[in-house]
Amino acid sequence: MKDVAARAGVGLKTVSRVVNGEPGVTPDTERRVREAITALGFRRNDSARILRKGRTASIGLVLEDLADPFYGPLSRAVEEVARAHGALLINGSSAEDPAREQELVLALCARRVDGLVIIPAGEDHRYLEPELAAGVATVFVDRPAARIEADAVLSDCFGGSRAAVAHLIAHGHRRIGFIGDRPGIHTAAERLRGYRTAMAEAGLPVDPSWISLGPTDPDRVGAAARSMLDGPGPITALFAGNNRVTVTAVRVLAGRTLPVALVGFDDFELADLLSPAVTVVAQDAARLGRTAAEMLFRRLDGAAGEPRRVELPTRLIARGSGEIPPADRG
Amino acid sequence: MKDVAARAGVGLKTVSRVVNGEPGVTPDTERRVREAITALGFRRNDSARILRKGRTASIGLVLEDLADPFYGPLSRAVEEVARAHGALLINGSSAEDPAREQELVLALCARRVDGLVIIPAGEDHRYLEPELAAGVATVFVDRPAARIEADAVLSDCFGGSRAAVAHLIAHGHRRIGFIGDRPGIHTAAERLRGYRTAMAEAGLPVDPSWISLGPTDPDRVGAAARSMLDGPGPITALFAGNNRVTVTAVRVLAGRTLPVALVGFDDFELADLLSPAVTVVAQDAARLGRTAAEMLFRRLDGAAGEPRRVELPTRLIARGSGEIPPADRG
Repeated sequence: MKDVAARAGVGLKTVSRVVNGEPGVTPDTERRVREAITALGFRRNDSARILRKGRTASIGLVLEDLADPFYGPLSRAVEEVARAHGALLINGSSAEDPAREQELVLALCARRVDGLVIIPAGEDHRYLEPELAAGVATVFVDRPAARIEADAVLSDCFGGSRAAVAHLIAHGHRRIGFIGDRPGIHTAAERLRGYRTAMAEAGLPVDPSWISLGPTDPDRVGAAARSMLDGPGPITALFAGNNRVTVTAVRVLAGRTLPVALVGFDDFELADLLSPAVTVVAQDAARLGRTAAEMLFRRLDGAAGEPRRVELPTRLIARGSGEIPPADRG
Repeated sequence: MKDVAARAGVGLKTVSRVVNGEPGVTPDTERRVREAITALGFRRNDSARILRKGRTASIGLVLEDLADPFYGPLSRAVEEVARAHGALLINGSSAEDPAREQELVLALCARRVDGLVIIPAGEDHRYLEPELAAGVATVFVDRPAARIEADAVLSDCFGGSRAAVAHLIAHGHRRIGFIGDRPGIHTAAERLRGYRTAMAEAGLPVDPSWISLGPTDPDRVGAAARSMLDGPGPITALFAGNNRVTVTAVRVLAGRTLPVALVGFDDFELADLLSPAVTVVAQDAARLGRTAAEMLFRRLDGAAGEPRRVELPTRLIARGSGEIPPADRG
């Protein structure tokens, strides 16, 4: 401020008036002060002020992959809630790597975020205990925390998956495949449990070759799908465990002569315009993000009590691919 | 640290040794210190250290909409480059609102980011001049800065659009519509210029009713497309100005009896599996992000010189929808 005052040829009081928008400065003087500010690159040092106040008005979001379309509406919803509370969103991807998740979470804590929304990659969140004890509010979303108690907002993966597989069974299928994400991921495990439960409830045996869990890259998923379709007990229907799997499954099935039924977990853009249109179990990604962020700000506003777990419903949307009857293989 | 020392019953020096991983501490003492740290929720105060060092090892990314699939790979690429340089990515959406862009950029500067990657919404970036003078490195991506000189990484929107429209003309079309984003957006203006140039180069007149610029929400785009298709001089082909427009155009065209040719700017997932598969002008969103972030870190490493503008090529991918001949309307 001294440099600005010297450069503009005015007193410190005048600079302060201009910066704070107070009256009593002529337009010409104001212009000179603003030019001096521009020339000197003067910036209000909010970092120092933030440290004094102890609040940064920012929250962190750790998700799995910024490029996965499922996380777009979720991130955007968290951001909108943060914005409504005057807070900035700081985010980053774990790339499904527990070490990277921990590194990112601790980096955000070191930057003094007020709270965290985490889509966890790891299976042990005890590293967060000192942060939680220090008062960093934390809400897990999409997947729960592991080995610690924490707020969580989840979709009903089990119920949605059971309904999806029951839907295929109701359309006459007996040999149904399931391709899902890595088994250590909570949502993948829950969706597998829904598949197994629906099959068991219908009294149907499950051949181990009909289940494949692992990374959701197109090569792995494509090979798994082809193996189930061309094996000795070929499937007539496939339940795809998330939108990444479904998109690859659509590609594999598009090239086959015999029709194969398909239900995917997660809705996705253009699912209704494919031929056949894709039947899905939709979860509401924006609502997941909004609910988690609202829970976080209630905690920051002082809401006490035990960690809560909220489960949001899913919705089966029949569009055609899930209603294809079993192919007659002659 | 004093509280930790008191609780663990050791001296300050011992706490310091444990925290900094120095030798000379028995395992039992180390355990007691760590337990005290956990119990007290002690956190290394990186904010204070950051202020002392004057570097935060973080960069800010301001984009238009976290939920637009075009920005997913771009954000992810910026994050990967930041990570390779040991920096955290802090990001947020402007929601195509210049005031919100400015608010977000200045909030990031107040948090002392080392640099900024900006997809601008505004048409006047002079508000950044004090920050630039203060040494905040800034690279614009997807769209250039307005009214200031700054580094920018862009796609060849003009050339790509001219090629798209020339492609439709080569397939026999004379009445070609263009639906684009708001005219104030640089990419929308450049794509319109490409459309007009290709039409002029072929000696074709352009009816004003064939051009519609505005928000890219489905209602606006759908109404514009229907009006061009059902008007007095109906179009036989449509050039869609970005992936949001194309997706709505696909929906509108799917319900028509007469085939209409379509080329979209931006590739999108599943474009090749639609019927007809959608011909697009693809830009490389990940490469845009990577190039911008690398330019930013070169500036942070001291690269001097005038602001640079890099233009990345686009690529026409013919898949079917752009090769449909003009419909015979009897």
